[in-house]
Amino acid sequence: MSKPKAIVLLSGGLDSATCLAIAKAEGLDIHALTFQYGQRHAREVSAAKCVAENFSVLSHHIISIDHLALAASSLTGEGEVPKNRTKIADFNDIPSTYVPARNTLFLSYALGMAEVSGTGEIYIGANAVDYSGYPDCRREFMDAFERMANLAIRDAVLGKLIVRIRTPLMNLSKAEIIRLGNSLGVPHELTWSCYDPQGDLACGECDSCLIRLRGFEEAGLTDPIRYRAKSDAALGSE
Amino acid sequence: MSKPKAIVLLSGGLDSATCLAIAKAEGLDIHALTFQYGQRHAREVSAAKCVAENFSVLSHHIISIDHLALAASSLTGEGEVPKNRTKIADFNDIPSTYVPARNTLFLSYALGMAEVSGTGEIYIGANAVDYSGYPDCRREFMDAFERMANLAIRDAVLGKLIVRIRTPLMNLSKAEIIRLGNSLGVPHELTWSCYDPQGDLACGECDSCLIRLRGFEEAGLTDPIRYRAKSDAALGSE
Repeated sequence: MSKPKAIVLLSGGLDSATCLAIAKAEGLDIHALTFQYGQRHAREVSAAKCVAENFSVLSHHIISIDHLALAASSLTGEGEVPKNRTKIADFNDIPSTYVPARNTLFLSYALGMAEVSGTGEIYIGANAVDYSGYPDCRREFMDAFERMANLAIRDAVLGKLIVRIRTPLMNLSKAEIIRLGNSLGVPHELTWSCYDPQGDLACGECDSCLIRLRGFEEAGLTDPIRYRAKSDAALGSE
Repeated sequence: MSKPKAIVLLSGGLDSATCLAIAKAEGLDIHALTFQYGQRHAREVSAAKCVAENFSVLSHHIISIDHLALAASSLTGEGEVPKNRTKIADFNDIPSTYVPARNTLFLSYALGMAEVSGTGEIYIGANAVDYSGYPDCRREFMDAFERMANLAIRDAVLGKLIVRIRTPLMNLSKAEIIRLGNSLGVPHELTWSCYDPQGDLACGECDSCLIRLRGFEEAGLTDPIRYRAKSDAALGSE
């Protein structure tokens, strides 16, 4: 008999790689989905390929999204990626790296894939502790998506599957995610977080690098990837 | 001062064209969105272009979606489009033209576009009377999407806009939609419904043709498009 399956959204970053490792550890066979949406840090797509291969996934689809809305972000457009920020205050302070409706779109693709694959289990590495304050990373959003999803697809309406948006990292700190990943064999050296890389060097100053670097420090571990600078700033949210 | 705006999902069929006409009649300026997802009836994309031009929309984006899930349908794949059906019983009887998560995906793109355009008004020509029984055409689904959407995007969370999924056709029969369209100047000759066209001829036998033909008959109007056959079957849902 074949193993139960799950869809995992895999960006190639620390969190999604850890999320994939958790689903594997739970005994699930994985269909991984990665999105290419004009992000500057396309370097993460190749990281996703390496991580997927490392965990011997059943399938890995890389989906190209060409959408105006996704261009309205410094991750994809011409604006500056913010550097050396020290604090995220509230939603008024959501950075320019925010991409409108990104997780809604990604989860919608995953929902189609879920129905086609006959599984309702969708894993996403969203996290509401050490994060950039994006509204579509909160569990409240995930709950609402889940409810909508179970009304959207035939097999859910027929009771053949129940869609569950799994967010095993939601309430973990970055340091906890890094330690957990370490214990589950996540190849941290293959993961990629930086929003503004140059070649194989992470910038060390964008929100994502700051959060990652502080996480490794707090976890008492060494980050195996290479940086071109390491900021003294420490990004916190409160 | 510029007029208030709306996003309209425009397939090129009767319903979405009427939906666009309603939004225009309500005094809104329109950003139209059309999706190309490998549907056999790509003829409808050129219909959408003509309809958008007819109504002088602000912008018309045609978005290509390349996704495995959308291929799991006789609309996009190799299966047979059902012909001359006479009845849709319940969700167990959803036809092979069903596309997993289609409206979820389309509305997710619209949500991104909404935030970028600074409007929360999203119009979709979904209809739960004369339809094929797809679960993502029900108002219950739309309500759940709306709730999720207002938790997903920054400007909704900040109270700068409220996302509303407008479904002005939800409770109208096809005949009522056709009559309403007629009164609002919808160019029915430019719209396209057939799932299985040959050139400029509609098949006259697929669910979509059957529902359209019966609608015109009940409305006491003549359908201006050309058919290669006209079935005696009459598709009903009960």
